[in-house]
Amino acid sequence: MRIMVIGATGTIGRAVVAAAEKQHEIVPVSHTQGKERVDLADVASIRALFRRVGRVDAVMSVAGRAAFAPLEKLSDEDFDLSLRNKLMGQINLVRYGVGNINDRGVFTLTSGILAKYPMVGSAAVSLVNAGLEGFVRAAALELPRNIRINIVSPGWVAETLQAMGRDPSAGTPAGIVAEAYMMSVEGQQTGMVIEATGGK
Amino acid sequence: MRIMVIGATGTIGRAVVAAAEKQHEIVPVSHTQGKERVDLADVASIRALFRRVGRVDAVMSVAGRAAFAPLEKLSDEDFDLSLRNKLMGQINLVRYGVGNINDRGVFTLTSGILAKYPMVGSAAVSLVNAGLEGFVRAAALELPRNIRINIVSPGWVAETLQAMGRDPSAGTPAGIVAEAYMMSVEGQQTGMVIEATGGK
Repeated sequence: MRIMVIGATGTIGRAVVAAAEKQHEIVPVSHTQGKERVDLADVASIRALFRRVGRVDAVMSVAGRAAFAPLEKLSDEDFDLSLRNKLMGQINLVRYGVGNINDRGVFTLTSGILAKYPMVGSAAVSLVNAGLEGFVRAAALELPRNIRINIVSPGWVAETLQAMGRDPSAGTPAGIVAEAYMMSVEGQQTGMVIEATGGK
Repeated sequence: MRIMVIGATGTIGRAVVAAAEKQHEIVPVSHTQGKERVDLADVASIRALFRRVGRVDAVMSVAGRAAFAPLEKLSDEDFDLSLRNKLMGQINLVRYGVGNINDRGVFTLTSGILAKYPMVGSAAVSLVNAGLEGFVRAAALELPRNIRINIVSPGWVAETLQAMGRDPSAGTPAGIVAEAYMMSVEGQQTGMVIEATGGK
């Protein structure tokens, strides 16, 4: 399969590329690095990306920014960024990318554990993650040509915790999280929220 | 309690007012009718509403527009309307209304069954409803002064089905749905999604 990976240089993205490139052709895409770049908050950037890359069998999005801050500090701009970037950015990959996906292709988006299990500071992130899961459940009913769509909900990633100076053993290694993305791509399911937590 | 009801003239809103006004003082608010009006898509309109109404014990939102259409027909403007109106409109009632709510007060927002159980045409609505539920779970952790927040997820309403020329017995009467809003206001729970389906 020819697989476009958006966010290929991130912590999870690198693990997804490492897992997928064993058997598939990867088109890595990043916001700020490498040959193919995209700004998820910009529809024109997304449309231009698909025009350049052409047809693919799968799009994996491991990208998107959302604002993490105490509710009383979250500004109108914080909500706007979160909705435009991680939320509508990933939804627009589907809306503007569907014409570039081959029959029986698959979209795999990314939400996160805060959709279901919030914490102080996660109001905008929880909103975005839960909204993405609602969209994916619905879009699965309507995508044409047997194109599938799933969403991976990662828990805390061990490598991220380590970079934050916290105990990595409380998180899930990125390599384990990557398996959830491969399950979406290589399996048959559609409209699923695939939780990638635990499993050290 | 002094309770502001946003969307007081809608099908569910009228039933909520009828149930609440037996024991509480109601401040009815509508988009286009009556003394107090608000445009949920306009932050300035929301702020002006709270300035006029002053302090309340509860805010119930039974309002908000979102676009229902096949995924391939949903435009950028349809998503934008849905996010600005039903999604951010209700979230902004919380953000800009919290200072007007008395200690131990309560917000009650509205999502809908399509959050969990989508249908063809519901991609934007399912996104909005699920996102609102994620926000409410998170905001419950942070609201000050023991202020609570819940969200009611109504199924199809019998009166709405009847107005559409469909079998009303497949839906839940608005009076039953209204009980879920009263449960949020008069109960102790916070961060809950209260499903109001079935129960003919």
